[in-house]
Amino acid sequence: MSKMIDFQTNPSKYRHWKVEYEGPVANLIMDVDENGGLFEGYELKLNSYDLGVDIELSDIVQRMRFEHPEVKVVVMKSGKDKVFCAGANIRMLGGAAHSHKVNFCKFTNETRNAFEAAAEDSGQNYIAAVRGACAGGGYELALACNHIMLTDDSTSAVGLPEVPLLAVLPGTGGLTRVTDKRKVRRDRADIFCSIEEGVKGKRAQEWGLVDEVIPNSKFDDTVVERAREMAAKSSKPDVAKGITLGPLNREITDNAVTYDLIEVELDREARTATITIKGPSEEAPADMAAFEAQGDQAYMLKLVRELEDTILHLRTNENELGLWIFKSQGDPETLLTHEKLLMDNAEHWLANETLQYWKRTLKRIDVTSRSLAAFVEHGSCFVGILAEILFAVDRSYMMEDEFDGDNRPMAAIRLTDANFGRFPMGNDITRLQTRFLADPEHVESLKSQIGNALEAEEADAQGLVTVILDDIDWEDEVRIFVEERVAFSPDALTGMEANLRFAGPETMETRIFGRLTAWQNWIFNRPNAVGKDGALQRYGTGVRGDYNMERV
Amino acid sequence: MSKMIDFQTNPSKYRHWKVEYEGPVANLIMDVDENGGLFEGYELKLNSYDLGVDIELSDIVQRMRFEHPEVKVVVMKSGKDKVFCAGANIRMLGGAAHSHKVNFCKFTNETRNAFEAAAEDSGQNYIAAVRGACAGGGYELALACNHIMLTDDSTSAVGLPEVPLLAVLPGTGGLTRVTDKRKVRRDRADIFCSIEEGVKGKRAQEWGLVDEVIPNSKFDDTVVERAREMAAKSSKPDVAKGITLGPLNREITDNAVTYDLIEVELDREARTATITIKGPSEEAPADMAAFEAQGDQAYMLKLVRELEDTILHLRTNENELGLWIFKSQGDPETLLTHEKLLMDNAEHWLANETLQYWKRTLKRIDVTSRSLAAFVEHGSCFVGILAEILFAVDRSYMMEDEFDGDNRPMAAIRLTDANFGRFPMGNDITRLQTRFLADPEHVESLKSQIGNALEAEEADAQGLVTVILDDIDWEDEVRIFVEERVAFSPDALTGMEANLRFAGPETMETRIFGRLTAWQNWIFNRPNAVGKDGALQRYGTGVRGDYNMERV
Repeated sequence: MSKMIDFQTNPSKYRHWKVEYEGPVANLIMDVDENGGLFEGYELKLNSYDLGVDIELSDIVQRMRFEHPEVKVVVMKSGKDKVFCAGANIRMLGGAAHSHKVNFCKFTNETRNAFEAAAEDSGQNYIAAVRGACAGGGYELALACNHIMLTDDSTSAVGLPEVPLLAVLPGTGGLTRVTDKRKVRRDRADIFCSIEEGVKGKRAQEWGLVDEVIPNSKFDDTVVERAREMAAKSSKPDVAKGITLGPLNREITDNAVTYDLIEVELDREARTATITIKGPSEEAPADMAAFEAQGDQAYMLKLVRELEDTILHLRTNENELGLWIFKSQGDPETLLTHEKLLMDNAEHWLANETLQYWKRTLKRIDVTSRSLAAFVEHGSCFVGILAEILFAVDRSYMMEDEFDGDNRPMAAIRLTDANFGRFPMGNDITRLQTRFLADPEHVESLKSQIGNALEAEEADAQGLVTVILDDIDWEDEVRIFVEERVAFSPDALTGMEANLRFAGPETMETRIFGRLTAWQNWIFNRPNAVGKDGALQRYGTGVRGDYNMERV
Repeated sequence: MSKMIDFQTNPSKYRHWKVEYEGPVANLIMDVDENGGLFEGYELKLNSYDLGVDIELSDIVQRMRFEHPEVKVVVMKSGKDKVFCAGANIRMLGGAAHSHKVNFCKFTNETRNAFEAAAEDSGQNYIAAVRGACAGGGYELALACNHIMLTDDSTSAVGLPEVPLLAVLPGTGGLTRVTDKRKVRRDRADIFCSIEEGVKGKRAQEWGLVDEVIPNSKFDDTVVERAREMAAKSSKPDVAKGITLGPLNREITDNAVTYDLIEVELDREARTATITIKGPSEEAPADMAAFEAQGDQAYMLKLVRELEDTILHLRTNENELGLWIFKSQGDPETLLTHEKLLMDNAEHWLANETLQYWKRTLKRIDVTSRSLAAFVEHGSCFVGILAEILFAVDRSYMMEDEFDGDNRPMAAIRLTDANFGRFPMGNDITRLQTRFLADPEHVESLKSQIGNALEAEEADAQGLVTVILDDIDWEDEVRIFVEERVAFSPDALTGMEANLRFAGPETMETRIFGRLTAWQNWIFNRPNAVGKDGALQRYGTGVRGDYNMERV
């Protein structure tokens, strides 16, 4: 599986999903094309999915928010007769490299989180209308919706059969959402996750696995009714018209990925990707109407789209570039005008969507399994939202004092209101709160620094950067860091970074990416699952996996 | 590594630790016997440790609380000249099976948690007096102490060199305690965990890695002074004399482990261990003085000691018995008198220690990587503390109505005050609160059931058992459950159970056992760490591990 995977798509290319828009209600219909797999060697039967199916879903969820702000309720349903969704395609999983499985689960998790949070963030509420078998990743799709309706017939059931059938865990948050979102009693959850055939009818409702069980004859009508009710109750303001998200201007070569506002330099020998963000060339639009008129060309929106694509592209297609280095270049004052417009108009639907998009994208950085660094060089513009990147990375290096022959403006960091609550991490506190867990008062005192251009010495004194270096030391120190970092075992780094990045409180989200993912990764390495006699290889042969029965 | 590992020891057998008692202060001296390894093939150089060293430490921590209640401060130090502790022995890790590594880390984690909690639970405060190199597991020993003193010289440093040196993670909570106990800034933690040589002197203190840095010349005196100060400030009541923990009466055969109060039946074909707890034959002692006079023969203390040994023995020595079934037989009323004595006198030092010991032992059940079930049969005594076992297991089955030819008293469960706060799980809420996360009011309403003998139908209605079965169905249903359960992949079950057992809040403890352990297990399976060219195998050869550089 080494062909490049492109995360950019648009409705004209969809093969697996359809969306029907009916005013405030959208019907999102999963109808997977069996022959539309991303790779050879498997058929996407029974509405099973691979990464390609999920890339379309992610695109839909995103466009729903920008292109269809009139939508208040999304009803997810199946276009097949007897099946809602059979989950991730097992043959795809059986044939995929470990890294692909892990990356696949990460992206699908992010997509589930995105539509789960849409209700709170944007007033778009997802309903799962489940008719037919809804198993494994299929039920996990439903679990991430905020209301699950199940038809009451002999073939409709929800289930997580991964453990008994496949010797792996549900890969996209299923266990965590069962216990912590739906708060199913743990012994019932234990039974539920141990039975291949799933749970149906009244019991599914009694155990809290679904919200409603509806006779088959009344199912469609009740779903329509429920969607209308929810739309009517929604507090989402009416917005008549969205903006169009056009294709990104992107060029990929062997050594670089170039967008309008981001330049990614790929150094395969050094095993680094250097991501340089360009500041805006012009002041912000005068108001949100002007921003809306710019549409997907508005700086703050264009930049976050490019940043998201950068992250997804590098994660999936450049596995051996173990260290990402973030840089920026541009005028901080001009950049601030763009951020200010959004922050001052956060109630405006498009400002809100753009800020929420930044929130999601910054979270993607947090859970990226690459070493992350930022170099705060002269001429940089790490201010406000972009300064969040400094607090997301594992380490930051900042230039101190003048550098010989470098006449760019002195490196400085500026905090804004955006650093104090607008962009919580998955642990539901800000990156500054996480950083200064030992000293919450320091976070408060940093508010008095809002707007100040903090040069290296001051940024260091305030704890905002890791290392400051002058002209004499910069080159050597930075080089040594890079060389050392990329020489470490990638596995150990992944484990270390996953643990060090998320101090403080835990949420369902951190639990999914931290605890559940780690257990899944472990199991995805065990012969009982992935060995030649393991369950994933033997799936469909009628012969059960041959297990080593030692308990670990 | 298949010889039986015995978790029972006593001071006459210690090879690696010495304890000097000086009134309220105890000096706990680590002086590992290089030739005293539990297995062949490695020498325990530089105060490195294996499971045998940790079994002694665990024994000391335990005896400190029961045999030496006069102790208020424990000073952990090294008996070697230039090294505090070099951590887990790498050759041992390099040669050990995956299951042994995981079990080893679990037990050492439990031991660290036990002495870390001793301050709050028993008023025994641990100080780490660090002179010389303190690396990896050595620093993790110090991290679990509540005050770390470091001498300021050229060779004394604290470090977590696992990632750069060994391509694994610190295995006993190091990353979590750095970020969440000591709240070290995450970028500093990143540096700290990336440098082989560790951090010393002022920087160690400034970064929060240690509490005090003291000039070498004043180190010993300052440690003595600090210990005395802490002892003087302690609110722990003075207790002149402890009780002696004598050897357990235990017989191990191929099919059974038999103690005075616990009978473990090992069915290798069925892959189950059935653990039957016997109720007390006599009423409780009249008061705590009488309990103290009974000493280690007092029912509640003897039972928990036997239960703990059962857990540790089965976990380590019986890896293929994938399902533990808990049963009990005895008179509930008589048992209640024993529990009541402790609960009514919880302020008494020995009652407190016995209850705390139960808390720790119940937590050991929670984190055991075996499927856990309880069968509530006629004649059983799952009341109060023993009922906690029902809420710790993955599933419980209870006999309903009379069984043909069975004239034992009807199966019934009784709740007591002990179920409502005295025995929190690692997540810091009770097992009932975890069980009824969806319905906290139900936990409140259950208080009105305290003391009632809840037979099957009522226990089921109250949500206290998973399945109730009458004489017609019992045998078949229970048999099917056992057969199905032990046929699943052990790895998938471990991951599933680790996720389903801990709903609700997270703590440092759940994070260590859940998140950190899972990542560690994953890394312990990766060729970069454990392959023939991996870091663990190559350690000491001067050649670095040969890593696959793909990031996962």
